[in-house]
Amino acid sequence: MSTDSGGAQQTRSRSAILDVVRAAGTISRVELTRATGLTGATVSTVVRRLIDEGLIVEVGRAESTGGKPRTLLRLEPLARFAVGVHLDIAGITYVIANLGGGVVTRWRTAGTGGDAAEEIVSRVAREVDDMMHRVDVERDRVLGVGVVGPGPLSHPAAAWTTTPEPARLAGFALVDALESALGMPVLLDNDATAAAVGEYWSGGIESTASFGALYMAAGVGAGVLVDGSVYRGSSSNAGEIGHVCVDLTGPECWCGSRGCVEAVAGPAAVVAAARARGVDLGPAGRPATEDFGTLARAALRGDAVASSLLTFSARYLAVAAQTLATVMDLDHIVLTGPAFAVAGSLYLPVIEDHLQRTFFARGSHALRVRLSSSAHEAAAIGAAALVLQSELVPRPSAVRMPAEHTVAVASSVPVER
Amino acid sequence: MSTDSGGAQQTRSRSAILDVVRAAGTISRVELTRATGLTGATVSTVVRRLIDEGLIVEVGRAESTGGKPRTLLRLEPLARFAVGVHLDIAGITYVIANLGGGVVTRWRTAGTGGDAAEEIVSRVAREVDDMMHRVDVERDRVLGVGVVGPGPLSHPAAAWTTTPEPARLAGFALVDALESALGMPVLLDNDATAAAVGEYWSGGIESTASFGALYMAAGVGAGVLVDGSVYRGSSSNAGEIGHVCVDLTGPECWCGSRGCVEAVAGPAAVVAAARARGVDLGPAGRPATEDFGTLARAALRGDAVASSLLTFSARYLAVAAQTLATVMDLDHIVLTGPAFAVAGSLYLPVIEDHLQRTFFARGSHALRVRLSSSAHEAAAIGAAALVLQSELVPRPSAVRMPAEHTVAVASSVPVER
Repeated sequence: MSTDSGGAQQTRSRSAILDVVRAAGTISRVELTRATGLTGATVSTVVRRLIDEGLIVEVGRAESTGGKPRTLLRLEPLARFAVGVHLDIAGITYVIANLGGGVVTRWRTAGTGGDAAEEIVSRVAREVDDMMHRVDVERDRVLGVGVVGPGPLSHPAAAWTTTPEPARLAGFALVDALESALGMPVLLDNDATAAAVGEYWSGGIESTASFGALYMAAGVGAGVLVDGSVYRGSSSNAGEIGHVCVDLTGPECWCGSRGCVEAVAGPAAVVAAARARGVDLGPAGRPATEDFGTLARAALRGDAVASSLLTFSARYLAVAAQTLATVMDLDHIVLTGPAFAVAGSLYLPVIEDHLQRTFFARGSHALRVRLSSSAHEAAAIGAAALVLQSELVPRPSAVRMPAEHTVAVASSVPVER
Repeated sequence: MSTDSGGAQQTRSRSAILDVVRAAGTISRVELTRATGLTGATVSTVVRRLIDEGLIVEVGRAESTGGKPRTLLRLEPLARFAVGVHLDIAGITYVIANLGGGVVTRWRTAGTGGDAAEEIVSRVAREVDDMMHRVDVERDRVLGVGVVGPGPLSHPAAAWTTTPEPARLAGFALVDALESALGMPVLLDNDATAAAVGEYWSGGIESTASFGALYMAAGVGAGVLVDGSVYRGSSSNAGEIGHVCVDLTGPECWCGSRGCVEAVAGPAAVVAAARARGVDLGPAGRPATEDFGTLARAALRGDAVASSLLTFSARYLAVAAQTLATVMDLDHIVLTGPAFAVAGSLYLPVIEDHLQRTFFARGSHALRVRLSSSAHEAAAIGAAALVLQSELVPRPSAVRMPAEHTVAVASSVPVER
């Protein structure tokens, strides 16, 4: 075996063992061997190293059937930490999570509204630093910082190529700037993808599920996990269900297309329609998610105009759910994100009813739909979890690439870069 | 290592080696070790066994830099075969392929039109038997028969739960019946999924691509391959882009939904619209794909009504391509299937233009679109390739399932079974 693949193999074994121990709570070496398919020798070696590093501890013995009692192992959750940062125009949500996925602390500060990119960077660095100090998390125990938000990601993910808010972070080299300011590794990802990971990480999703998180904040998106791994597509921009066309002659969208679910029926569109119809949402100029909350509360009190606007929106979110479930063949959908946190009970029955009649594979298997119980924080939790996963979860072994396939492209779509 | 995971590991090593040898053409044991990441000892053992079974042969020596010349290995393509059967109302397309992916023979017989399921089974068995005899392919060298067609698959895939043609094959235990009649293993899959595999197998797709085959016969579908593996979702029913809603108040679809791309703008819908507008398509009662061909030829000759009908259809196929590419984050789309074989040149520019303006990740990476050069046969080739892949392609190692995640489902969509 070459040195390279030996090293890669060792990293995989380490991640696999950490992940099994985390999920099991406590587990013996023998059970670890069985669960990972690794040899007993490999498990022994890797576990000894993880104990030396403080990531795993021995916690007593279990009864054994026949043989000598087996020593139990568990993760030391306080050995490492990760920071999650969810950037949104309405607010920045922060989470510090430990290696076991437990949330050590979470907090929220005012939105990024009209701030310049450099101001956002220095502010995030300061707010993360302050909190680490306050909750006594040492810098050398932090694996990294996950930052998530809306918009298409560059590939590899170092910046957003465009964003809903013109000029704010579009094209800005956010990863480089934050790594310099924080002195820690930074990963960038999509908020809906992070929300899916956050929902999975918080429990309640079967690990075998083809699971989609339908995410609604000011915009609409989705993240999909298959067998616990994020479906990423070719550039981590998969799942953008808010930007599929439901009306060829519909309104223009910030993404450059028209008739997108988000532009037709997302919270910002609903709020604009409500103001146009004279619904009193208080002073103008607040983030769309706040106005949307006001509108949802009016609908829940029985206001007819608010109800009809939200029902209109729900019908299109139901189409988005149908498209996501039918294209990706999901068996589980969670409605999450701040907009579903306030209006989920209005959307859920409409979405369920629509899926019951339209999900393509409904004759083959069930499709469960439910509201998240952590819809406000799932994206920030997922941002931290993505950092932890890079330490914990075994990456799929490299797929071999046939050497002889040639690329014969008859025509290509030119793109801006 | 337990016996079970040892066995699984051996199967994976065997598949990995076969796949690398197939893709490389000729390759030495040293290069195999490097390409697979397996140990030299494992490669030696597995290669020796494959030579004994006749699947691999030694074919001379390569110059070596310094050391002794290395023996080269190649696949023996005639060691094993697979049969592909594409069932369609307009015709049954058959392919016999060898282990190297080469097509030994292909033929086509009349469509399955109004035939009862039992008649289709006995006819397919007879036609496959006859041809194996004629081209001198022995039964014990045939790995199995892949059968593909439209409609949602049961899980595991043993039947279609519903089909576009009422009562013909819906709910019929096709795999059992065909295995009895043929005396060979049978796998069932979706025609669009098979078409994607056929396109990939025939070359022209980069193995690293996130690749979608947009498939159009009488209906509309898609198959997606990521790094050369089919994206299956929870029940192999992924990619059903013909059944996403583009018009909430649109026409009813055979799938039970309404406003589906297929019902609004698929070939059958276009042909119905043409007949309603008095376009002369010859006698009624022919399969929709044949009428669609007549209409496409009229459009290519400059007929204004035919052109406007196909442009209308192309705009919705473009939306389907946008949805597929945006949700799955593709970097490569091939237009394939019999309807694109006759009308692809009319659809391609409309689809390209639309994607150039609307594909969500267009600022992050290119999205190539091209017409298939084997649009008629891709599904049948893919049906055979799916059988070969089960022998050749290493399955991804099992993903570990966290033991502690519980399932808390707030509500579920009841489904017919």
